[in-house]
Amino acid sequence: MAFFDKPLDDLRAYRPQPEEPADFDAFWKQTLDAAAAAASEPESVPFDAGLATVEVRDVTFSGWAGQPIKAWLLLPRGRSGPLPAVVQYIGYNGGRGVPWEWLTWSAAGYAHLVVDNRGQGGGGKTTADTPDVAPEGHGSSSPGFLTRGIEDPAKHYYRRLVTDAVRAVDAVKALPEVDPTRVAVLGGSQGGGLALAVAGLRDDLAGAIADVPFLSHYRRASQITDEGPYSEIARYLKGHRFEVEDVMRTLSYFDATNFAARARCPGWFSVALMDKVCPPSTVFAAYHRYGGPAQIEVFPYNGHEGGAAYDTPRKLAALAEVLGPR
Amino acid sequence: MAFFDKPLDDLRAYRPQPEEPADFDAFWKQTLDAAAAAASEPESVPFDAGLATVEVRDVTFSGWAGQPIKAWLLLPRGRSGPLPAVVQYIGYNGGRGVPWEWLTWSAAGYAHLVVDNRGQGGGGKTTADTPDVAPEGHGSSSPGFLTRGIEDPAKHYYRRLVTDAVRAVDAVKALPEVDPTRVAVLGGSQGGGLALAVAGLRDDLAGAIADVPFLSHYRRASQITDEGPYSEIARYLKGHRFEVEDVMRTLSYFDATNFAARARCPGWFSVALMDKVCPPSTVFAAYHRYGGPAQIEVFPYNGHEGGAAYDTPRKLAALAEVLGPR
Amino acid sequence: MAFFDKPLDDLRAYRPQPEEPADFDAFWKQTLDAAAAAASEPESVPFDAGLATVEVRDVTFSGWAGQPIKAWLLLPRGRSGPLPAVVQYIGYNGGRGVPWEWLTWSAAGYAHLVVDNRGQGGGGKTTADTPDVAPEGHGSSSPGFLTRGIEDPAKHYYRRLVTDAVRAVDAVKALPEVDPTRVAVLGGSQGGGLALAVAGLRDDLAGAIADVPFLSHYRRASQITDEGPYSEIARYLKGHRFEVEDVMRTLSYFDATNFAARARCPGWFSVALMDKVCPPSTVFAAYHRYGGPAQIEVFPYNGHEGGAAYDTPRKLAALAEVLGPR
Amino acid sequence: MAFFDKPLDDLRAYRPQPEEPADFDAFWKQTLDAAAAAASEPESVPFDAGLATVEVRDVTFSGWAGQPIKAWLLLPRGRSGPLPAVVQYIGYNGGRGVPWEWLTWSAAGYAHLVVDNRGQGGGGKTTADTPDVAPEGHGSSSPGFLTRGIEDPAKHYYRRLVTDAVRAVDAVKALPEVDPTRVAVLGGSQGGGLALAVAGLRDDLAGAIADVPFLSHYRRASQITDEGPYSEIARYLKGHRFEVEDVMRTLSYFDATNFAARARCPGWFSVALMDKVCPPSTVFAAYHRYGGPAQIEVFPYNGHEGGAAYDTPRKLAALAEVLGPR
Amino acid sequence: MAFFDKPLDDLRAYRPQPEEPADFDAFWKQTLDAAAAAASEPESVPFDAGLATVEVRDVTFSGWAGQPIKAWLLLPRGRSGPLPAVVQYIGYNGGRGVPWEWLTWSAAGYAHLVVDNRGQGGGGKTTADTPDVAPEGHGSSSPGFLTRGIEDPAKHYYRRLVTDAVRAVDAVKALPEVDPTRVAVLGGSQGGGLALAVAGLRDDLAGAIADVPFLSHYRRASQITDEGPYSEIARYLKGHRFEVEDVMRTLSYFDATNFAARARCPGWFSVALMDKVCPPSTVFAAYHRYGGPAQIEVFPYNGHEGGAAYDTPRKLAALAEVLGPR
Amino acid sequence: MAFFDKPLDDLRAYRPQPEEPADFDAFWKQTLDAAAAAASEPESVPFDAGLATVEVRDVTFSGWAGQPIKAWLLLPRGRSGPLPAVVQYIGYNGGRGVPWEWLTWSAAGYAHLVVDNRGQGGGGKTTADTPDVAPEGHGSSSPGFLTRGIEDPAKHYYRRLVTDAVRAVDAVKALPEVDPTRVAVLGGSQGGGLALAVAGLRDDLAGAIADVPFLSHYRRASQITDEGPYSEIARYLKGHRFEVEDVMRTLSYFDATNFAARARCPGWFSVALMDKVCPPSTVFAAYHRYGGPAQIEVFPYNGHEGGAAYDTPRKLAALAEVLGPR
Repeated sequence: MAFFDKPLDDLRAYRPQPEEPADFDAFWKQTLDAAAAAASEPESVPFDAGLATVEVRDVTFSGWAGQPIKAWLLLPRGRSGPLPAVVQYIGYNGGRGVPWEWLTWSAAGYAHLVVDNRGQGGGGKTTADTPDVAPEGHGSSSPGFLTRGIEDPAKHYYRRLVTDAVRAVDAVKALPEVDPTRVAVLGGSQGGGLALAVAGLRDDLAGAIADVPFLSHYRRASQITDEGPYSEIARYLKGHRFEVEDVMRTLSYFDATNFAARARCPGWFSVALMDKVCPPSTVFAAYHRYGGPAQIEVFPYNGHEGGAAYDTPRKLAALAEVLGPR
Repeated sequence: MAFFDKPLDDLRAYRPQPEEPADFDAFWKQTLDAAAAAASEPESVPFDAGLATVEVRDVTFSGWAGQPIKAWLLLPRGRSGPLPAVVQYIGYNGGRGVPWEWLTWSAAGYAHLVVDNRGQGGGGKTTADTPDVAPEGHGSSSPGFLTRGIEDPAKHYYRRLVTDAVRAVDAVKALPEVDPTRVAVLGGSQGGGLALAVAGLRDDLAGAIADVPFLSHYRRASQITDEGPYSEIARYLKGHRFEVEDVMRTLSYFDATNFAARARCPGWFSVALMDKVCPPSTVFAAYHRYGGPAQIEVFPYNGHEGGAAYDTPRKLAALAEVLGPR
Repeated sequence: MAFFDKPLDDLRAYRPQPEEPADFDAFWKQTLDAAAAAASEPESVPFDAGLATVEVRDVTFSGWAGQPIKAWLLLPRGRSGPLPAVVQYIGYNGGRGVPWEWLTWSAAGYAHLVVDNRGQGGGGKTTADTPDVAPEGHGSSSPGFLTRGIEDPAKHYYRRLVTDAVRAVDAVKALPEVDPTRVAVLGGSQGGGLALAVAGLRDDLAGAIADVPFLSHYRRASQITDEGPYSEIARYLKGHRFEVEDVMRTLSYFDATNFAARARCPGWFSVALMDKVCPPSTVFAAYHRYGGPAQIEVFPYNGHEGGAAYDTPRKLAALAEVLGPR
Repeated sequence: MAFFDKPLDDLRAYRPQPEEPADFDAFWKQTLDAAAAAASEPESVPFDAGLATVEVRDVTFSGWAGQPIKAWLLLPRGRSGPLPAVVQYIGYNGGRGVPWEWLTWSAAGYAHLVVDNRGQGGGGKTTADTPDVAPEGHGSSSPGFLTRGIEDPAKHYYRRLVTDAVRAVDAVKALPEVDPTRVAVLGGSQGGGLALAVAGLRDDLAGAIADVPFLSHYRRASQITDEGPYSEIARYLKGHRFEVEDVMRTLSYFDATNFAARARCPGWFSVALMDKVCPPSTVFAAYHRYGGPAQIEVFPYNGHEGGAAYDTPRKLAALAEVLGPR
Repeated sequence: MAFFDKPLDDLRAYRPQPEEPADFDAFWKQTLDAAAAAASEPESVPFDAGLATVEVRDVTFSGWAGQPIKAWLLLPRGRSGPLPAVVQYIGYNGGRGVPWEWLTWSAAGYAHLVVDNRGQGGGGKTTADTPDVAPEGHGSSSPGFLTRGIEDPAKHYYRRLVTDAVRAVDAVKALPEVDPTRVAVLGGSQGGGLALAVAGLRDDLAGAIADVPFLSHYRRASQITDEGPYSEIARYLKGHRFEVEDVMRTLSYFDATNFAARARCPGWFSVALMDKVCPPSTVFAAYHRYGGPAQIEVFPYNGHEGGAAYDTPRKLAALAEVLGPR
Repeated sequence: MAFFDKPLDDLRAYRPQPEEPADFDAFWKQTLDAAAAAASEPESVPFDAGLATVEVRDVTFSGWAGQPIKAWLLLPRGRSGPLPAVVQYIGYNGGRGVPWEWLTWSAAGYAHLVVDNRGQGGGGKTTADTPDVAPEGHGSSSPGFLTRGIEDPAKHYYRRLVTDAVRAVDAVKALPEVDPTRVAVLGGSQGGGLALAVAGLRDDLAGAIADVPFLSHYRRASQITDEGPYSEIARYLKGHRFEVEDVMRTLSYFDATNFAARARCPGWFSVALMDKVCPPSTVFAAYHRYGGPAQIEVFPYNGHEGGAAYDTPRKLAALAEVLGPR
């Protein structure tokens, strides 16, 4: 793989000029208020996963425009009351998949909500069960989701997906198995970007864990790598030669560096120095703007897999610190 | 590149078992009737392309669900009455682009309609100006268009795109610059697949030219190549392991082999033996089912570029044969 | 990806001539007897994995030449007596890794032993904690393990690894948490090959599950793919041009097709038709020689990932069938 | 693709030390005088391209050593007198191809001469019809044209090709359909390099348009990219380890930075920041030495395709500015 | 690498229909007679290679049209009279290089002539010192030598190179250090193809050794591989779509299968089953037409390196058999 | 290829901070003393290589722990007394191969010892005949040799290989055909790294030639390239995320920069600026610490092949300077 981004010393000092639209907060307030107004109570039904120690429930909650979003709820059996909850977001092109993929956090004693990605799940890895419904449609886009609706922040795909992610916390707090005062969010890659978005758009979280987060510092991302979903931007602009600034403006509404600046809960980041999917400078750009107390774990010889399961102890400790006993 | 598909002798004999749903004709009749019912007259406005010998008009016509679809109309200046028309469809990930890309057929004396691809145009080649609006949304999909709405033929992206293509002929016939009794369709790759679809769904065409056509014989296509858009099917099924037959069934509604079987106008095909995007066996599968008189030009040492501009004389002759004097 | 091996119909009929040395059984009897003679009781100590529903123990047992081999034992907490056990072997270049990677089978209610791979674990995926000690050394080898000791079956790396795998079942049966009459083995890739080896070398197993198994039909494997560890054979023979038959003879002592022929317990296979690491013909070659009742699941659009977690229900059902209640 | 050359700010300041031989002007004066002495009048015959609005003529003119060079002349039909002319040079490995590839500039109202590339045309894109005759032969060369005759500027392939390009302007001025006082040159890649060469070697041009020009700043070019024809230099020097300076000296006679310094007519450049064939620093090196008034268009997300047809309006405006009405 | 051509059993039976022009013999008689008429005596001067046991001489002899061709003559020091000679031809894009690359055959006691390749030597491996002079020039060609002069057998590059190779034997026989009654030819890749050509065009050779020979069975070669110089044909025909048969006709004058059919001296071939540069079916096609007694060594796990130095004993034995004592 | 490391001016100034353990000298004194204590006299037997001017002997000498190590001794026939000797070490994954691969230095008049690489030789290039025996085994490793025994310098593979290399000089000095006062070492890649190691660990050498040496400056090497054996470190650390400093410490015992600092005999280096296997900065790091008089030859357009046979004159001159007449 080899290093391809700035040296680590420079990364630790990297604080690019933010690209933040003036109406960023208004845009999101309007968006989330509308979603809240359209929401109904989450529903959950039992799912037989054939597991002795884990109870699995198939959850449906209200996302963007009140549309139904799927999630898995995994619970340790034999619990004695509401549990603190971990809300997990999933990486790009994937979805909530099947319950056997997500056994860690319920085994650790938490209520664990695995939130689906609308319209994704066709990437050959984890699958999804939630359609993407965008009644007004969208204009020209590269294959993938990053440029879908790029002509207008109001029509952009990530407006819908981020809203779903924010609403997932409302949903988990409304579940009877959950202690609504103790909720943390986490995820890797796109899931990490969504965790940062939710951390920036809500004020009731106990903590946020963002591993090798995506959705950050799009301008540099689109110039420094030709792997992974950031290259969708470059591909789009290869054809749309005269729309660079328009595209960057739309994307700025969905930039994790802007979300991060609004977060107040404790945050844990990780970054991999050989990660061509989410280059380290884009991760440090978000980390350095994070508004709450924050730490970052650096994996020098890893690509986008980052710390993988080998980083679980760090996350168990972080959750124990902010969620308390379970 | 090298040969990778069947030897030419075997290709010339290749007639796989069709995969055709029983309600294929009903599905399309219902679809097209609904589009016709929602249609209004095409509109066109002048576009200043700075050209001395070509008049360019920016056309908007009614496609699927009556939605507005863009097209360029290119006309030779100095004409003396309505002209026979050539309707061209564009390749995957592209769109109508800019008029300077399409100067051949008006230079040859025809009215030339270049039809846009809804939602496409982000592939870094030709651009598009038409949004894709799918009010009911779609489920999980691979990046790209081939699996968008794969869960239901009624929601599938190509239901909308094929309908737009069929409606483009209605539109061109309604233009004052066009002689509505003399219209041919043509295109390469996805454009070739659409030309075959329109040839199979209409009975008023003078001819159809399909170069290295896409959208054909999906089962084999998804197994024999890992390049180009057919690989979207394989990628989707990599994750959706247990849905192979469901996917093949949906795609069968949009299979050029089924459209070709219904065509009656003269057809001209081309195929390239080193084409990993549209493998030759998939082209021959459509060619062998073509219902009208048909010919095929074989390019043994070409990939997906096929005959390119070097094949223009063959097409000029074909058009002259079926469209008459201009 | 694309298909690259025989068509599925031919695969279903593929029964190549076995390559089996006359002293195959004697070789293994002598090998396993020596290991049994050198063995001592397994030891296990608690490991704090920070999990509420899973008890983890760090196990050390006697493998080849009585050498200490590491394993994880994962147990559901709150159990009421000895449990049926699942012994899992791990893929090439990996090892037992960390407990959070292996939460499925204990969650399903089984005692779950995850057996380490001696000397492996440096491939950048799962890690290993067991050294490979080969007092007599080995001759020239390609990077990797498949040609280590290729000059002599007695010195070959897989003689040691297979012996460790066989001894792991003795070890799990000696653990107080396990019902020794109900033990099954499973694994994917190299783990699947080892599961077949153990199934062929023991007569006390309830069942064996081999997903996309490696270590099978080396001659064809070394000719049909240039990905994955089978290519180590081709690379070795690229330099050692005149030793093809010697190499094939050594490998025949470690060929899953020969082990499979000796198995009597029920077997479940899976195969992926786009798997260039363990090509489908090599998997069918083992499947067709399997000596017990056997079934095979075919994944047409998958590579070496095979069924992944999406195939868990099939395996849960298989284990429930042969291991009974837990 | 990703950025791989200097940042844009540094590119805008990049002015490397020129490598210019002392006898550069003498070399070219002698070369062009000899060609002029050997020249005869251009000839042209009608070519039936089957086009209603375009008249095509097959032109033969005298190039290096008076050798016959082919060109297409495309003219708008229905014109009323001599027209201003656009002379176009073609990219590496291509040639004048077929007339249907070049319909833009005659449609815009200009006489358009498309000049062939001697000996090229075998690259699988546009073809050529002009042989390369080098009576004295050449020494060792890499596959391709850049090192053909590298041992001596007098024998170098580009001495012949540049001379052909200069002579093409003499030819077009001698054609009855052309107003000899209004001639511009243009081209992309090698065609852009040739346009700069002609702009530097003639004083009678109205303007020059060089898109993503090749043939520039060979030393850096051979070190910064391993794609495209510049890599032929590196490949040659890989074997000819001790001839670096000799090779650079020969190439300096054909370096667009040296030609550009001698140009006086208005110049329009374009550059693409992800262009690995003609890296941006080599384009800026020529642009910064250009002797006439000059502008440069920057395409940040494009590779060697640069602006393609989407950049036509800029060029139409440039030509209109310097060529006047047509 | 993996097998990609026919199975070995089919290769052993592969005898494609020859493509041989009626005037093949007349063409070569005229060509070689003209070269003989233009020839003068070879010259050689000492070259100081700093070697204690090897005498090196720099040889110049008359090739095509009497043009001077370079060669190295390596001789064991301390010899007692004329020696049998080995004439070696060099692979594509290389040349005679430097004497330290060719120490085997003089160490074995032979006079060893290493013949240069005109105009080649720029491929980054061995270098060349002989220019290619083609007074009549050549038309369009792909980069490389295989299509240079493809429009006419009389102008084709390999007409000149094969003539040089034939003349090299005349030259070596005229050297005072050589016993002219005992001369063998050998080479690998292009050198092997040239050895076969010379074996077919002369009747005074003691033997010919052709390792993984190039220049054979062009039609299949251009269709089965996209690596190495055969792909130059495919690249040329990609652009020159309508010239397939013309190209095949020109190449048939330089096809090793046709030369081989005329050979009468003993021949030794080698072939590598994973050789994508000179695919095994093309080698067997020549081997099966070889007119003298012939043997073939098969390297199943090798690519184009074939037997390399590990195959020296076979060649030492072959030379000893036909050249007698030295 | 292209440049990928620092610019040449920076390379010429590149002197990174050494990573040298405090007990480096003690470690090696203990290691070499133990090997000396276990050594016996070298043995050699004739080998029939079929060569007239070269005498070949098959040598066995005592390496690490007194284990038998193979080597070829090549001698010019007809010599008149003991000769100065050249000891050559071989590149990674190779070994002493066959005598016909190594004819240069005996032809130049030297006794030439080609030292085998224990356990290597399976890389498809040169073969090896010496087993690697490590009685205590080793822990987890990446495929390849660089991380074998990475957990402990005492168990590391290169402890054994370097010791063999040092002992080879003792062996060559004990051979009757050699003048023990005149011995030089040389090698390329791993062979160059070993030559530097021996130069640093012995005080009786006349000179050392290290071409594109490997085994140097591991930290940067593992970060700057993903080709060649240095990538084994990165691959290992990809999985062993928390062991970076432990790994670097073990490797520091085998770092050519540390060996070079202890050398006192004249040294000749070469470096290639496009070498991704042994990046130029790692070579300059060793060169700049070299303790004796030293020179470096820079090949700007070469990869890991460096100067190849074209650099022989420089090495002949170097050897003549330090070894005197032969």
